[in-house]
Parts: sequence; C-alpha cells; structure tokens
Amino acid sequence: MAKELKELTSREENYSQWYNDLVVKAGLAENSAVRGCMVIKPYGYAIWEKMQRALDDMFKATGHVNAYFPLFIPKSFFSKEAKHVDGFAKECAVVTHYRLMNDPSGSGVVVDPDARLEEELIVRPTSETIIWNTYKNWIQSYRDLPILVNQWANVVRWEMRTRLFLRTAEFLWQEGHTAHATRQEAIEETERMVRVYQDFVQNWMAVPVIIGHKSESERFAGAEDTLSIEALMQDGKALQAGTSHFLGQNFAKAFDVQYTSREGQLDYVWATSWGVSTRLMGALIMAHSDNNGLVLPPRLAPTQVVLIPIYKGDEQLKQITARLDEIAGELRALGVSVKVDDRDNVRSGFKFAEYELKGVPVRLVIGPRDFENGTIEVARRDTLTKEVRSQEGLAEYVKNLLDDIQDNIYQKALKFREEHTVKVDTYDEFKRVLEETPGFVLAHWDGTPETEEQIKNETKATIRNIPVDAPYEEGVDMISGKPSTRRVLFARSY
Amino acid sequence: MAKELKELTSREENYSQWYNDLVVKAGLAENSAVRGCMVIKPYGYAIWEKMQRALDDMFKATGHVNAYFPLFIPKSFFSKEAKHVDGFAKECAVVTHYRLMNDPSGSGVVVDPDARLEEELIVRPTSETIIWNTYKNWIQSYRDLPILVNQWANVVRWEMRTRLFLRTAEFLWQEGHTAHATRQEAIEETERMVRVYQDFVQNWMAVPVIIGHKSESERFAGAEDTLSIEALMQDGKALQAGTSHFLGQNFAKAFDVQYTSREGQLDYVWATSWGVSTRLMGALIMAHSDNNGLVLPPRLAPTQVVLIPIYKGDEQLKQITARLDEIAGELRALGVSVKVDDRDNVRSGFKFAEYELKGVPVRLVIGPRDFENGTIEVARRDTLTKEVRSQEGLAEYVKNLLDDIQDNIYQKALKFREEHTVKVDTYDEFKRVLEETPGFVLAHWDGTPETEEQIKNETKATIRNIPVDAPYEEGVDMISGKPSTRRVLFARSY
Repeated sequence: MAKELKELTSREENYSQWYNDLVVKAGLAENSAVRGCMVIKPYGYAIWEKMQRALDDMFKATGHVNAYFPLFIPKSFFSKEAKHVDGFAKECAVVTHYRLMNDPSGSGVVVDPDARLEEELIVRPTSETIIWNTYKNWIQSYRDLPILVNQWANVVRWEMRTRLFLRTAEFLWQEGHTAHATRQEAIEETERMVRVYQDFVQNWMAVPVIIGHKSESERFAGAEDTLSIEALMQDGKALQAGTSHFLGQNFAKAFDVQYTSREGQLDYVWATSWGVSTRLMGALIMAHSDNNGLVLPPRLAPTQVVLIPIYKGDEQLKQITARLDEIAGELRALGVSVKVDDRDNVRSGFKFAEYELKGVPVRLVIGPRDFENGTIEVARRDTLTKEVRSQEGLAEYVKNLLDDIQDNIYQKALKFREEHTVKVDTYDEFKRVLEETPGFVLAHWDGTPETEEQIKNETKATIRNIPVDAPYEEGVDMISGKPSTRRVLFARSY
Repeated sequence: MAKELKELTSREENYSQWYNDLVVKAGLAENSAVRGCMVIKPYGYAIWEKMQRALDDMFKATGHVNAYFPLFIPKSFFSKEAKHVDGFAKECAVVTHYRLMNDPSGSGVVVDPDARLEEELIVRPTSETIIWNTYKNWIQSYRDLPILVNQWANVVRWEMRTRLFLRTAEFLWQEGHTAHATRQEAIEETERMVRVYQDFVQNWMAVPVIIGHKSESERFAGAEDTLSIEALMQDGKALQAGTSHFLGQNFAKAFDVQYTSREGQLDYVWATSWGVSTRLMGALIMAHSDNNGLVLPPRLAPTQVVLIPIYKGDEQLKQITARLDEIAGELRALGVSVKVDDRDNVRSGFKFAEYELKGVPVRLVIGPRDFENGTIEVARRDTLTKEVRSQEGLAEYVKNLLDDIQDNIYQKALKFREEHTVKVDTYDEFKRVLEETPGFVLAHWDGTPETEEQIKNETKATIRNIPVDAPYEEGVDMISGKPSTRRVLFARSY
C-alpha cells in the first residue's frame, strides 16, 4: 500500500484531520505562504473547472451572460446600504497605498508614505455595491430590464479561522446580480437560481440538498429574503452549499437606480444576487469520500477511468498496454475521460492506492491471464468491489457503469441524510440527538430571534433553513411553547 | 442611422477618441468608479470568453494544466529576486489593514488602526514569486519535473495613465509558470509558447504578428530572455500582444528550488513564464475596426450571423421571421452562432447600424420581395458589400463565407502591415518614416543600450523586438556606424 495512503487519518479517528489530510494528499489544495489563502493545485482545479463549466452552461441556458467588475470597491460604497455595511465592511483586506519604494536604509522595499490613497479601497468581499453603482448608468427604462449578469471572480473575507476550501480568506466564486422591473420577477429569479443550484449539486455533485428560506438573523446583509441549499456531511454537520437572495429595492435605493416603466412612471429597480464558491469543493469531498481517499462522482471526475496493466517483463507490458490503449480509444469515442498508466517504475499496488486516493471512479486492469482469456477486471471506487468480465462490449458497459456509479453515490448520500434527519418535539430530545446521532433535526420554532439565539448558544445548532416544501403541521416551539405551523431545519454546521 | 453610430468619432479625426468611443458604444467595456479599473461589459466579456476557451484548449493540447495561486504576495517576496524587485515592486496596490470599523464620530466606516498587518501584502502584479515559493515544496526530484502550470487570474499594476483594455490598473490574464530539469527544455518551452500565442493571434484574432527577442532593456524583470509577438495597429503603432520568458535559474535560486537529477546530483530548476491579457481585446478592436464600428473575425464573434426581417405589418413579420428561424436552425446545426432579431419596436435601419457597430460578420435580410422569390440579402461586415442570392444551399454558403471573412480580415491586416513596414538605413530616413508613414521600421542596430536609448528619447520609437527569422545581413548602426548583422524591428508603440 502506498505511503501517502498509510498516512491518511481515518474519519473515525479525527474527522477534521481526515478532511485536511485528504485535501492535501489527493493533491487538491494546500495552504500558501499567505495567511488564510490557499493554493488550488492542478487536480483540485481540474474538478473546479468541471464545476464551473457545468454551472456556466446552466446560467447561460437560463438567459444569463457573464461580465467583469473591479476587484476594488471604494470604502464609502459600503456605507450606502445600511445593513450591508454591518455585514460586509468588517473583516476586509484594505488597500491604503499604491506604491513601494526602496528602503532608504537599504534593506528591501517599504511602502512609500507619499503614495497614500485619498480613499481606501476594499478588496471585494462581494460585489453588490460596485455593481449597483454601475447599473445606475445602464438602466433608464423598462427596455433596459431585466439585466441578467453573472461574474466569475475571486473575493476576500478576512476570516480568522480558515480551512481549505471551506473557509479561506480568498476564494473563487460566481456571483449573479440581476435587475428587474417588478418585485414578482425578482422573486421568480431568486427561486429559479436556487433551483439551478439544487439541480447542479444533486445531479453533478451527487449531494442531496434541502431548499429553504434563511431565518432573518442568517439572511444576507441587505437582502429581504435569502434562499439556501443545505447539504449534510458525513459527520452529521450541515454545509450551506449556495444562496440566492431577493434584495428587494434596497440596493437600487442605496445607489439611486430608477427606471421609467412602460406607463411612464419612475420606480426603483428590483434586485437579486446569488452565489456558489470553491466551498462546493469542500462539500464534494466531505459528502462522499472514505478512509481510502476521495470518491468522485463520474460527472465531475477529471479522469473517469484509469487502465492499468499487470505484467512480467517488457514484452508483456507492451502487449497488455497495446490492448488497454485500444480499450481507452473506444472509451474516449464514447466521451469518457481515460488514462492509461503504463509507468514501469512504480508497482501496480502503488498505482491502485494512488487512484483510490484520487477518487477515480473506475479502474480497469488486465493481467497476463486476462490477456489470454480476453477478460478484464473492473473495479468500482464507490463500492470498492470488483469483477472480472469479458473485454467484449466493455466500453458500453463502462459507460453505463459510470451512470450507475453517479446514481449510487447520490443514493448513498441521500440514504445517509434520511437516516440522519429526525423530527423532535422536546428540547431534551433535541439536545440528545445532536450529541448522540448528529444530523438534521426538524423541530417546531416560534419564529422569534430569541429562541433561535438561545438554541444556538446552548447547543451550537442553528436554523439551517425553513424548507420551502415543509408541510403544514401544527405544533409548539420546543422552548417557548408558542404555536408553530411547520418544522424548520436545525443542525450544527460548517 | 442609429444615434450611437453618429456619435462615433472617425479614425481620421481622432484615432484615440475613435478607439475609446468604439469600446464604450459597442458595449465592450467602460471605466468604473475605481480609478484605472474597467468594467468589462457582457459583449466584451463574451469575446474574452471565446479567447480564453481557444487559448485554454491550446495550452491543454501542449500538456499544461490550470491551478490557482493567492491574490496576495508578502512584500518581502519581491526583494528575493534582484531585478524583479525593480521591475514590479513599484506601482502596486498595497494591503496594510484587514479590518474596518464604524467611525467613532458616526460618519460611515474607517480603517481600524489596530488591524494593521505585520507584513504588508501586495496585490499580485505577476505571480513568479508566490508560485516559485510554492514550487519549492513541489519539487524534490527530476521525477517531479516538468511542472507545466497555467493560471487564469486578475492582476493589478498601478498605472498612472490608463486606457480601456490597453492599459488598466486591474486586468485579466493568464500566466503560465513552468519548471524544467534542463536549460534546453526551458528554452524549448519558451519558444513553444510564443508560437502558441502567434498561432492564436493570427488564426483566431486574424492579426499577423512578428516573433522576436526583446532587447535587454525591454526584457521582463528577472528573465534571461523575453520573446514577444508584435502586432501593427491601423495608426501605425505597434502593440505587444504577448510575451514568453526564459527565466533561467533566477527564480529557482531566489526561492531555493533544487532537484535531484537522475544521476543523483543537486541542481537548480529552470523556469519559464508566459502571458497574454485582456490587452488582446485592444489589439483585436484596433487592428480591424472601421468608422462604422467593430469588425470581428468570425472565430471570435459571439454572434456570427444576424438575421433581420423587413416587413410591413404583423402578418409579414410572422411569415418572414418563421422563414428566418428555419434558416437560423440550419446554421446552428452547422455550428454557427446566430441571432434572429424580430424586434418590432425598432426600425431595420437602426438594427443594421447596431450590428455593424457590434461587428457581427454576416447579416442576412429577407424582405417581402425576397420572401416571394426565395431570395435573401447577404451582407458582409468586413467589406460592407452585399449580394442577393437564392435561399437554397444558404447555410453551407454562409458557413464557407465565414471562413472567407476570417481569411480576408487576416489578409487585409497582413497587407496593411506589409505596406507599413520599411527598411531604412539612415537616421534621417528613420525619423521621416516615423513622422510621415508610421509603422514598423527595420533598421540596423549596434546592440548597445546607448543607441537604443538615444533613439527612444529622440523619436519615441523603441526596439519592438529582434525578429527570430531576420535574415543575416551586414550593415551598420544608423547612429554609431558600428557593424550589425541583422535588422531589428522599431516602432512607436502602445
């Protein structure tokens, strides 16, 4: 077994360390020399690129176009929207100077004190303010609406405690910013995009999610309503995987963006914003992986199938590799991404462990006996099972197998979530569940920030969201005993 | 004629104003509220996305993978490579603080003086330092080499005078950073990538370029050799469209990156870096466009063909649009990107002007008579010519026409460059050409920075590069009279 693999901490031993080990050892990302900023390594970035491509296609299919806005935001912009300033103008990277000079004492470079900016610039933590300041010039009439723009960008939030992918000072994301003539249209957009996220996370990442409204205290700073998708990780903690905000007319008012309606009336524009980030990488890793390494859903795996020869001597290596190359060609013709690993300086056991660690969904192996018999070993990463079958019709078989694996990974995650979602009616039970079998807890809530706060302080569990499809059910709040008409989703979270 | 178009300054009147008008009015980009930073608008970004996709495919076809490194670089990193510090640690955005707070006086937010960073962070102007600091941990043995990594990112250089796309404080680019075991391999990579750039700029952007070595004074700070591609704009000025640097062992030594060779010897790693940026958008616009607006090469045009009905009354509009939709479907099936513009609230003359302004390569128009006769008007943006032809076999015809247009635009630019490239042998002639018929000037140079400097100061012309395919030719320097063995490429430049 490969050395790297031996060093992977097990989930049971230390879940948090297992996650970090996995991210680093599978070559996804690592910490950089800059506090809180990560390096996304080629293998991790290849997965992110697949995510980007799929999401971008979905955005375009729903009528959106991409654009790019400045990295820097003048400090004063944050003060324009009252709630936004409290939410975002806090832990930020602040640019105060625009020049370095040689240190007069001769030791390296120092900041040139004469090159101080008149107004400090903030490295964007999110772009509502700079974008609405821009939209002001783009929108005069109803004919200019809707504006359906998305941006792929880096953003910076000066987090004190960071974790690779899950919480980093700089991260990559997309942020959609749309402008509409009516409240109704903006609300529909908010809902449309959270459903696009659900579609992507479930059907590409194979992670089931619950759509719901955030409680007022967890809402985006400046939003009238925030919809989120919430996923459950293997340690029973929730992870917010994406959000879509109905911003009302708040930013239009803050930046004075009005339009003339068809009827000639002047009104403020309605807004939405929505985003997902490299945090999704964290969700992908944590939802499916095991003690052998990553488990990647085939639709996002940079390499879907690896082909490995087992051989004695150069002649066999050549023969078997030639056969594997043929099979690889057939798979490529079906649109499958494959890799033939014919390295002769590492043992096949090392290769097996390496591709398990990297989460390659299917491994195909031909040994000397297979070569003679026209058979091949097919191993699945998700179930760690293997079978020997005929080489005939293999490409089609593997193509279908990838679909099965995609579905199986999703079903497994769904089953886990269902087994870790419980309804509770008393606070004692609530606390016991969180300690003993952590996961999603559905409980009644009286809708007040007070009980929400108390529960958070006492149990570290928060309201993840108020599910949009929660059925009507009469009940009472666990703590206050006040009436409630539907259950909300609680969990401890990332 | 549309209002926007009337307001487009002509090239002859004011070239610089024409360029700026065009960028803004065609919806490519605009200045933002942040000094020197632009907003890339959806139409401009759509072209950039096409560039990115084509380049990214070319990088991957030559064995490169993408990764992502931090936006911020610790100030001290710049001091590690002696020349690099002079070149890049000057006009930079400097992050000094990580927190804002409410102004005690109650007016907005201010920088929290307690949140000063121990070491300032520089917003990357280029990433050699942070990347080689990272490579240090990735490279131990010859087995870890080569590293062929590219990054798509934003960078910031605090330029004093900015122009949309051509020179902005923040811009988007890709930067390749490769590590090799041998000097020869790194030199080959440097050459390979400048040829990839040439291929892209010539075959996608339809702009001919000249590959050559930069003179020592124009070299990238920290490079042993810089290769560039130089294009000629319609005003006779040169534009450096891309660079590829052979960095020797300079960054490996600065960041102590050594590897053990196959023979067990320890040696420093050899490096290259190469990049192109949103500046290419400026080259694309300036190389081909005219007083009617943009002229886009079909391979980069977001919309390649626009279809417009001319009609009287709703019935005709419906009939003709239905026919146009059929044709659009046939074109889409051939992989052509099309748009049917059946808006009934703007006149067709307005539409014609709008798509001319936006540089859509082909316009197809069906009027009532065409509808009856089975004919269609085909108009080319590049030549501004039109013809009426049968609707039969139209899709194939248009598909081929797009290839012809791509080629014609390139040939036109090539012809322009050839007509504006002259050999001169005396300094008087040199100065006269620059004043009267500006363009590329091929002249002998004695290879010293002194004459280079003198020419630059007296004429504003610089050595664009020393063409790699310049034939051996004995001559003498225009100024010093010292011997020279080949001509170098001079021009005034962007």
